Amino acid sequence: MRSKTATLTVTCTAIAAAFLCLSAAAQSPAPLDAAASDPAVMGWMKGAPPPADKTIQRADASYYKFPQTRWSFSNWSQFMPTHSVWRGEGAVAKLSGASDGKLEQLHFKPMNGGQDMTVAQALAAGYTDSVVVLHKGKIAYERYWGVTSAHTQHIAMSVTKSFVGTLAATLIAEGKLDPKALVTQYIPELKESGFAQATVQDVLDMTSGVRFSENYADPKAEIWTYVRAGGILPRPADYSGPTNFYDFAKTVDKANEPGSTFAYQTVNSDVAGWLVRRVSGKNVGELLSERIWSKLGAERDGIFALDSAGNEFAGGGLNVTTRDLARFGEMMRLDGRYNGQVIVPKAAVDSIRAGGNREVFATPANALLKGWSYKDMWWISHDDHGAYMARGVHGQAIYIDPKAQVVIARFASHPAAANSASDPVMLPMYRAISDELMQH
Amino acid sequence: MRSKTATLTVTCTAIAAAFLCLSAAAQSPAPLDAAASDPAVMGWMKGAPPPADKTIQRADASYYKFPQTRWSFSNWSQFMPTHSVWRGEGAVAKLSGASDGKLEQLHFKPMNGGQDMTVAQALAAGYTDSVVVLHKGKIAYERYWGVTSAHTQHIAMSVTKSFVGTLAATLIAEGKLDPKALVTQYIPELKESGFAQATVQDVLDMTSGVRFSENYADPKAEIWTYVRAGGILPRPADYSGPTNFYDFAKTVDKANEPGSTFAYQTVNSDVAGWLVRRVSGKNVGELLSERIWSKLGAERDGIFALDSAGNEFAGGGLNVTTRDLARFGEMMRLDGRYNGQVIVPKAAVDSIRAGGNREVFATPANALLKGWSYKDMWWISHDDHGAYMARGVHGQAIYIDPKAQVVIARFASHPAAANSASDPVMLPMYRAISDELMQH
Repeated sequence: MRSKTATLTVTCTAIAAAFLCLSAAAQSPAPLDAAASDPAVMGWMKGAPPPADKTIQRADASYYKFPQTRWSFSNWSQFMPTHSVWRGEGAVAKLSGASDGKLEQLHFKPMNGGQDMTVAQALAAGYTDSVVVLHKGKIAYERYWGVTSAHTQHIAMSVTKSFVGTLAATLIAEGKLDPKALVTQYIPELKESGFAQATVQDVLDMTSGVRFSENYADPKAEIWTYVRAGGILPRPADYSGPTNFYDFAKTVDKANEPGSTFAYQTVNSDVAGWLVRRVSGKNVGELLSERIWSKLGAERDGIFALDSAGNEFAGGGLNVTTRDLARFGEMMRLDGRYNGQVIVPKAAVDSIRAGGNREVFATPANALLKGWSYKDMWWISHDDHGAYMARGVHGQAIYIDPKAQVVIARFASHPAAANSASDPVMLPMYRAISDELMQH
Repeated sequence: MRSKTATLTVTCTAIAAAFLCLSAAAQSPAPLDAAASDPAVMGWMKGAPPPADKTIQRADASYYKFPQTRWSFSNWSQFMPTHSVWRGEGAVAKLSGASDGKLEQLHFKPMNGGQDMTVAQALAAGYTDSVVVLHKGKIAYERYWGVTSAHTQHIAMSVTKSFVGTLAATLIAEGKLDPKALVTQYIPELKESGFAQATVQDVLDMTSGVRFSENYADPKAEIWTYVRAGGILPRPADYSGPTNFYDFAKTVDKANEPGSTFAYQTVNSDVAGWLVRRVSGKNVGELLSERIWSKLGAERDGIFALDSAGNEFAGGGLNVTTRDLARFGEMMRLDGRYNGQVIVPKAAVDSIRAGGNREVFATPANALLKGWSYKDMWWISHDDHGAYMARGVHGQAIYIDPKAQVVIARFASHPAAANSASDPVMLPMYRAISDELMQH
């Protein structure tokens, strides 16, 4: 992690959600860089029909291999079952301002003594597919690469978790979901599982203490069953495990006392989605539309990936446009108020911003995130700007800097799944952009 | 076909497109009626998660079984790969007027001496999911049943063909596609197939003369390979045939001289979609968005089902809202001009309305459509009102009556696939509604 090129050597660690290291594992020795792997240049899925060597399919799992991911991350509904998150009938919330290319020439220092670099260099190093920077709610910078554009939806990966966590925090603020209650009070089906003693808040904060290994070297690791249960990867012909996210969650064992440890395990998000559905009586996509997406003035519907039983992939399946991702971040920056109305209760936003347990968060896996915490499926920096983030593998991010009044929405298709591959460059870049814009 | 109840005994015939008789084949002895099979009442996919006996899945093909189809036809993206047909950035083209429930009490006589019935009875007999009636472009009647609403998209089945045919007719009107040219001039890959001597117009008019049996009693019928090649039904583990629509089309043999016979064979639509892509350099969904959907003032994106190689299911895979379906019909009624602009060239609309070869159309399979013809993937009645239709199995329809200035968009989930099950009631109903509205 000494320079931007060193990001390529990062291997999968527990920092990444379960399903996330598959493409990285295929990397050897050095993948194509951002320009060489531009999906429009490579010509994926071009032609009628595309030639076989340019076709990306579900059956061979090529949609989850780099560099095909540079195309598939913007076309996720071609590879998994989905349903729409309706944007409602309201007008689009116009974003004023205009992209200022000068921001690309801003210099900053990466972490760990890395060489000084520009924002343009950093965005390329991070295999950025699209980025929207808002300052005081206006567009300060916006750019699209490859096959993305202002109207294309991109998979948000684990940024999805923050949407689900925000819905849960909303239900908590409304008194409909008790954060101190045992998960099993709402989901008795989990009584025999490792979630039996975990509270709702444990699940939302990734402190449930369940056993969920993401060690790809171990063929018995839970991760392999998880991705197949949820249909994130095709199932082998002889597969006989659970066939949806919830049935998988029931099989998870206990590893630690709830609340005592932090472990970033995507299965917690599935349980969070399950809780939200149980309490609201609506599926996650419906509730997201009703509470947030239909009020946000979004430009397009969201698209939610589902398992084969129709359950939303609450840990990573939401696809939205980059501007809509930025609008969501801006709504959070504004205490839940956006597009002329209260969308998320301020109490929910306050609860998220206050953060979680910083002591349990301080694990080796989080070495790059010193002093941070995790709360309601958001990442809280506790820095002097009060910055907090939604984060997804391969570089997906919402960065919210309340003090600088900046929101950055970024989609990417980095060959390495783990954010530890991008963080040494991206975190300082986000801060440098915020510092720069603060001066205006 | 003597009364509305007799519709239940209709079995699959060549009138239906290939993939269409699967649910009907499962009918015995009499399926639930519309009220009893209401998908909201039956509770499909309700619960978090839904109980096993209320879950509809791809793996067991339950999404293509009645009465599950009453839910799945409104949730198609949960069962097949899809991509969006972008509605563009423009405002919604507002539909003025208001639904007048009195139209439901209108009486009319079904075909063949059937008993006098009301529109309300007919809509129920046809397992109607949603209907929008426009008169002079204003809403005269609009209603939603089951799990549909004004903002839900429903699979259009073979109504999709008329969208693809309209794109082809547009490219012909612009001189970009030669209707008299051999298909192989654009698609050399078909030189060894039954399409070798067929012209573009033969394909658009279902007179290509290829061999494509829809006899479900014959396990060697092409239909079985077709639905599996396109992924419309899951493939058996030992399946070794083509794995997309285009590879399937290459395997089709010749049965008759092109132009000499009419046979409603969905494979022609795949070739039509292939032609449109070859000529335009865009996939069908992109071209549909660019040319029509982004100009129509549609309320929502369309959703196009794809085969596993990403090719649109041009014969039946488009999902749109009922109002948007009506807007498309209204645009056709107005000679291609709608929402303040020319969307489809008048020459293309004129060519469609003029109709095709009525002699070859007069087959036993079309006995209920006396005097009709088929042109550019539209059904032309040649009646005294100049009515013409887009038609899809299980009751999907756009009915355009130029003289009465009426457009009817209807989605349905009739247990029988073949439109011969609904036509004796629906065709007279469409005409009766038009006659009634004409008086105002």
